[in-house]
Amino acid sequence: MSEHYLDNCATTVTSEKAAQKALAMMTSEYGNPSSLHRKGLRAELELTNAREIIAESLSVDASEIYFTSGSTESNNTVVFGVSNAKRRSGNKIVTTAIEHSSVMEACKKLESDGFEVIYLKPDESGVVPMSAFEDAVDENTILVCVMAVNNEIGSVQNIERIGKIVKRKNPDAIFHCDAVQAYGKMVLKPKKWNVDTLCVSSHKVHGPKGVGALYIKKGVRITPLLYGGEQQKKTRPGTECAPLIAAFSVAVNEFDIANNREHAINLNNYLKSELKKIDCVTVNSADNALPYVLNISVKGIKSETMLHYLEEDDVYVSSSSACAKGKKSYVLKALNLPDDRIDTSLRISFSKYNTIEDVDAFLASLKKGIETLARIK
Amino acid sequence: MSEHYLDNCATTVTSEKAAQKALAMMTSEYGNPSSLHRKGLRAELELTNAREIIAESLSVDASEIYFTSGSTESNNTVVFGVSNAKRRSGNKIVTTAIEHSSVMEACKKLESDGFEVIYLKPDESGVVPMSAFEDAVDENTILVCVMAVNNEIGSVQNIERIGKIVKRKNPDAIFHCDAVQAYGKMVLKPKKWNVDTLCVSSHKVHGPKGVGALYIKKGVRITPLLYGGEQQKKTRPGTECAPLIAAFSVAVNEFDIANNREHAINLNNYLKSELKKIDCVTVNSADNALPYVLNISVKGIKSETMLHYLEEDDVYVSSSSACAKGKKSYVLKALNLPDDRIDTSLRISFSKYNTIEDVDAFLASLKKGIETLARIK
Repeated sequence: MSEHYLDNCATTVTSEKAAQKALAMMTSEYGNPSSLHRKGLRAELELTNAREIIAESLSVDASEIYFTSGSTESNNTVVFGVSNAKRRSGNKIVTTAIEHSSVMEACKKLESDGFEVIYLKPDESGVVPMSAFEDAVDENTILVCVMAVNNEIGSVQNIERIGKIVKRKNPDAIFHCDAVQAYGKMVLKPKKWNVDTLCVSSHKVHGPKGVGALYIKKGVRITPLLYGGEQQKKTRPGTECAPLIAAFSVAVNEFDIANNREHAINLNNYLKSELKKIDCVTVNSADNALPYVLNISVKGIKSETMLHYLEEDDVYVSSSSACAKGKKSYVLKALNLPDDRIDTSLRISFSKYNTIEDVDAFLASLKKGIETLARIK
Repeated sequence: MSEHYLDNCATTVTSEKAAQKALAMMTSEYGNPSSLHRKGLRAELELTNAREIIAESLSVDASEIYFTSGSTESNNTVVFGVSNAKRRSGNKIVTTAIEHSSVMEACKKLESDGFEVIYLKPDESGVVPMSAFEDAVDENTILVCVMAVNNEIGSVQNIERIGKIVKRKNPDAIFHCDAVQAYGKMVLKPKKWNVDTLCVSSHKVHGPKGVGALYIKKGVRITPLLYGGEQQKKTRPGTECAPLIAAFSVAVNEFDIANNREHAINLNNYLKSELKKIDCVTVNSADNALPYVLNISVKGIKSETMLHYLEEDDVYVSSSSACAKGKKSYVLKALNLPDDRIDTSLRISFSKYNTIEDVDAFLASLKKGIETLARIK
């Protein structure tokens, strides 16, 4: 039985080419990029090359890219690093109620340290109205954090418009964008969008787990989270994991945003049209959500029950964010969904490797599950 | 021409078996360990297995092992996490003048935040006298950080004896051991040695770069460095890099401490006996240093000049710590070595894969270099 992996917002398979690159670097070009000899230099050249590829994918300068262990670290670096560096300029942080836990929890920590944090509510489609930013951002605001694409429902914030508002209301406020779920799926232009810091993750785009990239616009001051060696201009010390970074850049080189989007739209449209035929299914994602993500609720069947039913047919979807393991989704709560819709929600998320057969396998298993599980009840 | 990699304190080649494990997990068992479905569960089981292997290698409980991105993060987690959690109990940190930069720089940051940090000086063999700990640790001490084996000269601190002193002088002080250069090379017993936290790194023991393990004794409170998801009991959130962690544990399973030590002693003794025949070479490492590391000075030839000469013969050694890239070694300074010895120092560091042929290649190239470079001068 073949596998139908439809949980690509949680993580993705590492592409064969990227994984082979990691392997080759682990076993051949394994030098420490900071070593002064040629073996170090060769690893450093791989780093430089990777940094350029990632910078180009974001239309920024290579000197503005820092590698971290992933987006939890990147988001924490920005939230704590900016609030620390700018604590004399203001006390207020503006974010949304549907950010990733690594922004949410870092912000809560700041609240306990005496900062004021505003969590803007989205409308029912998962989009925060522009007026909310207009009202919230002020002279006292030092940091604004907005995720480009939500990981649970796929709602897309208009980062460009928000950037304009932020800078008009307070040119000194740092505008941070968590672009983890957007990367490789839409064209990102942080410079054009007035974004000062932006993070992306390797393992969501068919690169290996354990590495992410953080864009820090030239001139933006961030107190580092880590102290140590001279690596990465001391903004992020520690031996760079060159094999992962190089593999990440190989995955980025494989981006084909327009074609993959077309493919995702086809899968999404087909899935939605078939789901319409099933009475007890409600779609939670809005029509303007990213086509890679579809959140639904299946009346009367708890998320986990259905998820485990589906896995028997080698169909893998998720209940909510993988990082929250079983907890009630605060994202769906923020959309004001009733509890029964939240408790029965499923997230289907595509990658470029998915096929119509995967969708059919999901649909067949779902229908069977609805019949079987409803009968058991 | 074959390669003679003698810079294993900077980083090591990933073992074939470990690298293959990482590859297999990236491309097959790529699930997110936090995902509730079977694909997530299989990745989680790999994590659990790896955690048990690493715990066993340190004779600690698996629940006391946390995975980080490496030892820069681990050391920072302890230095900042303990000082934050215990700031009401005291204001003093005791460490040595020859710690890794990730301890040194984190401690300097604490100093700028108002903590008192004592950097104990080693004797000329690179060992800090026990009396120094007796004198320094007091009721106001919240943290004591001592590295087991120095990365530049291989000097070994008696962690067991220091642990006894620390706990006798102040049972509430946290005793942290950076065991990066000791791991896999000597048997580590943190529990027996009164060590509360201890870190080890994958890429120094033939595992991949980008992952390390941090032992935190049950009951020790540490304010986390990162905030986010529910992973690793919230002490270290973020998607676990399961392929790296599993590969790391494969490398640890390949440990053969006694036999490898014997091998390193043979290489080291042979190297030292041959170096004795070369007039202008002085050995900086003490006789009781770890046999895997030998620091020498070559009269009249700057470290970098010799290092680049050696690389022409595919012999790779280092000038000092890779993390300091070209800066004058504060470790050798702390040993009170004269400047000309510091500026001409070379570090040769072995792994289990090195052979007598590697040592011969180094010796041949070194002798040739001494003749050639002395002539140029």
